[in-house]
Amino acid sequence: KVDPDRLWDSLMEMAKIGPGVAGGNNRQTLTDADGEGRRLFQRWCEDAGMSMGVDRMGNMFMRHEGADTSLDPVYIGSHLDTQPTGGKYDGVLGVLSGLEVIRSIRDLGLTTRRPIVVVNWTNEEGARFAPAMLASGVYAGVHDEDYANSRQDAEGKRFGEELDRIGWRGTEDVGGRPMHAMFEYHIEQGPILEAEEKQIGVVTHGQGLWWLQVTLTGKDAHTGSTPMNMRVNAGLGMARIIEAVHRIAMDHQPNAVGAVGQANVWPNSRNVIPGKAVFTVDFRSPDLEKLTAMRARLEAEAPEIAAELGLGIEIEPVGHFDPVTFDPDLVKVVRGAAEHLGYSHMNIISGAGHDACWINRVAPTVMIMCPCVDGLSHNEAEEISPEWAAAGADVLLHSVLNVAEV
Amino acid sequence: KVDPDRLWDSLMEMAKIGPGVAGGNNRQTLTDADGEGRRLFQRWCEDAGMSMGVDRMGNMFMRHEGADTSLDPVYIGSHLDTQPTGGKYDGVLGVLSGLEVIRSIRDLGLTTRRPIVVVNWTNEEGARFAPAMLASGVYAGVHDEDYANSRQDAEGKRFGEELDRIGWRGTEDVGGRPMHAMFEYHIEQGPILEAEEKQIGVVTHGQGLWWLQVTLTGKDAHTGSTPMNMRVNAGLGMARIIEAVHRIAMDHQPNAVGAVGQANVWPNSRNVIPGKAVFTVDFRSPDLEKLTAMRARLEAEAPEIAAELGLGIEIEPVGHFDPVTFDPDLVKVVRGAAEHLGYSHMNIISGAGHDACWINRVAPTVMIMCPCVDGLSHNEAEEISPEWAAAGADVLLHSVLNVAEV
Ligand SMILES: NC(=O)NCCC(=O)O
Ligand SMILES: NC(=O)NCCC(=O)O
Repeated sequence: KVDPDRLWDSLMEMAKIGPGVAGGNNRQTLTDADGEGRRLFQRWCEDAGMSMGVDRMGNMFMRHEGADTSLDPVYIGSHLDTQPTGGKYDGVLGVLSGLEVIRSIRDLGLTTRRPIVVVNWTNEEGARFAPAMLASGVYAGVHDEDYANSRQDAEGKRFGEELDRIGWRGTEDVGGRPMHAMFEYHIEQGPILEAEEKQIGVVTHGQGLWWLQVTLTGKDAHTGSTPMNMRVNAGLGMARIIEAVHRIAMDHQPNAVGAVGQANVWPNSRNVIPGKAVFTVDFRSPDLEKLTAMRARLEAEAPEIAAELGLGIEIEPVGHFDPVTFDPDLVKVVRGAAEHLGYSHMNIISGAGHDACWINRVAPTVMIMCPCVDGLSHNEAEEISPEWAAAGADVLLHSVLNVAEV
Repeated sequence: KVDPDRLWDSLMEMAKIGPGVAGGNNRQTLTDADGEGRRLFQRWCEDAGMSMGVDRMGNMFMRHEGADTSLDPVYIGSHLDTQPTGGKYDGVLGVLSGLEVIRSIRDLGLTTRRPIVVVNWTNEEGARFAPAMLASGVYAGVHDEDYANSRQDAEGKRFGEELDRIGWRGTEDVGGRPMHAMFEYHIEQGPILEAEEKQIGVVTHGQGLWWLQVTLTGKDAHTGSTPMNMRVNAGLGMARIIEAVHRIAMDHQPNAVGAVGQANVWPNSRNVIPGKAVFTVDFRSPDLEKLTAMRARLEAEAPEIAAELGLGIEIEPVGHFDPVTFDPDLVKVVRGAAEHLGYSHMNIISGAGHDACWINRVAPTVMIMCPCVDGLSHNEAEEISPEWAAAGADVLLHSVLNVAEV
């Protein structure tokens, strides 16, 4: 088993970098805090005898050597970046548990035939630069590097410039590393494991996703002196489309979700009818048909809503992945490890997107999940217990030892 | 008549200070640009032989002496501050036409018995610091000075600190100046005069207003892994209340308007269900019963909407005035001046709030309006013709000469 205290201490130490305003973290990708978190992780890995490779997307590959250096390594990866008001575990648990696996292997004096590489994937969250899982997506050949480098944050800063600025652009080509398997360990970010009182989620599938960005164009005008029938109110259009997104998701129950997370109106002044609104839509389902149908219905309904109000509308897709089926053999390995360790477990579908969803396209991949309190994530109050964290790390350790061949 | 070219040149000169991004202005109250605009206005007034008084709210009183210095002066006032994406005429036309009246009186070698004071009222727009017409409201005894000084902008800066910072806090007590009458000349900011092809609006009444600020509290959570039935979505609540505001206004037609101008969600991230939403509601009507009913209905419906979604709700009134009836004698003076000058005119109700609405409580007050293209205001594309501007200034000149006694 791993050392639960050492894992917890590392989590708490990392959480000191980029503190949030309410006990969580704001260590958004390619900020100074992200750079500082990366340096701490690098130091810890190097202290554990690992060597670093960094690719042109800033993905960090920390290698623990195997007995047979010519064999394809086993990968353990997740992300160190957070939401603007994020928790201390989302992503970080998976990366630091990877490090804990190596530390434990060394403590136990074990040698694996295959090398093991612990990865920190750049910009998983997608909060600052859409889409999410950007650098693992480039790694998997879903996006090209120019696309990634040109993505802009809300202030117009580009991903590529910010990566250079924090000094974490490597020289290695992106993608194509020989990969025997990849494991990602992550908090569930949903309420199911806790409700079912299971310690381990064996992740068989991942939901697919569509992210759409909607821009409505109306006419700024005075809220007092513009008669109701002369208004071209982009804020009202936004309200109706937010409601439509909700209704569409409800009409596709069960196994479908939809919401608007980001919403802005211009000029955002009390006595001005909004002349412009920009907002993002997030639809997800493990069922490809439902996912496709939800997007199609919004693309049919939203322009009708806009037309009724005289608004211009543009709908731009800014993120997408199809539902994912993880590698059945690795799923068995994870389930076997949980059983061997005596941890309660169940099959689960990942509600969130993860780097594993992209890497699954280029290597056999699987995920392990632990519960989180009230299913709460993307919230500074995100919480897990040290026991929950350690149980999943134990399953990760045993699974990796199995596949990397002790 | 006034000098139409000089008036227009002054408008264009002032518009160079705090330029907008699309041909209009961003000279928000108590910004550096506001300070610069005030200094230009001061210089112009002093060049025209006027002397300055400034009160503790930063209201500027530029005095042109009368033959009998002991008589109560006639006031001409409006505002030089603008919306964040405002036009070049809203407010500015009234202040600079006041200056043009004095310049014309001097050119014509006329003397009035009463002094004439041209006023720039601080923070009319209310875009940066709610409520609108803040300093004229203090002048009229509606708000106290502490309240005004403590008002905060979106960055948490206080009105009082910003007034000190730009160096425009005067020493004069606020309110209580002897005032024989006040005139405010303003663009209509609505479509009626243009549609009716009238040069002059004789403003008999002003709409009343309620500004409410609504705060909804839900729970930030992951858009992907949070089941629909576990969401407490403040953004969805905002959408439903925006729709309710619209429906309530439509149900009170004619002579009622309602809209949400400012809308923000937190943390405003694509994959986070908004845990908080703050937005402002603007209801207006010239009919006090309708105005009261609209507010009451929102205060009944919004909590129901919030409760259905499990949201916390707070509704805070942040601005209010009752419908206004301007001074009947001054209304006759304005109508008489328009007739005498041969300008087409009609009675009109002001859709917007104006400093005149507050000053009407402490002195006989009236407004004059000119049309604006497409009724568009609170928009950088706000436009008027030099002829429209001059016609209203002519009516202002004649009305003031009448009341100030040539
Ligand atoms: N795990 C996670 O929150 N990833 C961000 C991408 C997503 O929104 O699913
Ligand atoms: N005239 C004007 O736009 N005043 C601002 C206050 C209001 O919204 O009516």
